[in-house]
Amino acid sequence: MGVKRRGDPKYDEGKLSQLGTALRNARNARGLSQEALADAAGINRTHIGEVERGKRNVSFLHFCRIADALGRKPSDLLAEVSL
Amino acid sequence: MGVKRRGDPKYDEGKLSQLGTALRNARNARGLSQEALADAAGINRTHIGEVERGKRNVSFLHFCRIADALGRKPSDLLAEVSL
Repeated sequence: MGVKRRGDPKYDEGKLSQLGTALRNARNARGLSQEALADAAGINRTHIGEVERGKRNVSFLHFCRIADALGRKPSDLLAEVSL
Repeated sequence: MGVKRRGDPKYDEGKLSQLGTALRNARNARGLSQEALADAAGINRTHIGEVERGKRNVSFLHFCRIADALGRKPSDLLAEVSL
């Protein structure tokens, strides 16, 4: 597992893409719209959409709130995409 | 698992404290100083210290870089503190 430095776009894009996939899959499995998830998590819907598309970094606390709103453990969401 | 809203200090403090504990335990298990971890992860040492003490939120990408520098999977680090 190589250590990556700030500003390695491939590394960043890969991680954010994996996270986005995990969150979108979990939201769809729950049958929630982005709007409903955003409302439940107290986070802007546009932000949710960008995170799901892997286009935006997310804070750890926002990630925890999204996981809670999905009824999932953060560790389980990450494990599903091998993170 | 209740859904928490922005600005719930107890929720935020609890999550950040758990994360900090996980990171500190993993760093100590690895026998790394904060300086060595900061250098390996390409992250400021002060930031690492604040995150370990649960005093500061961390971005998802920084969390991934710290986990990589510790030779650990992000999901495993979170699972160890029941996150």
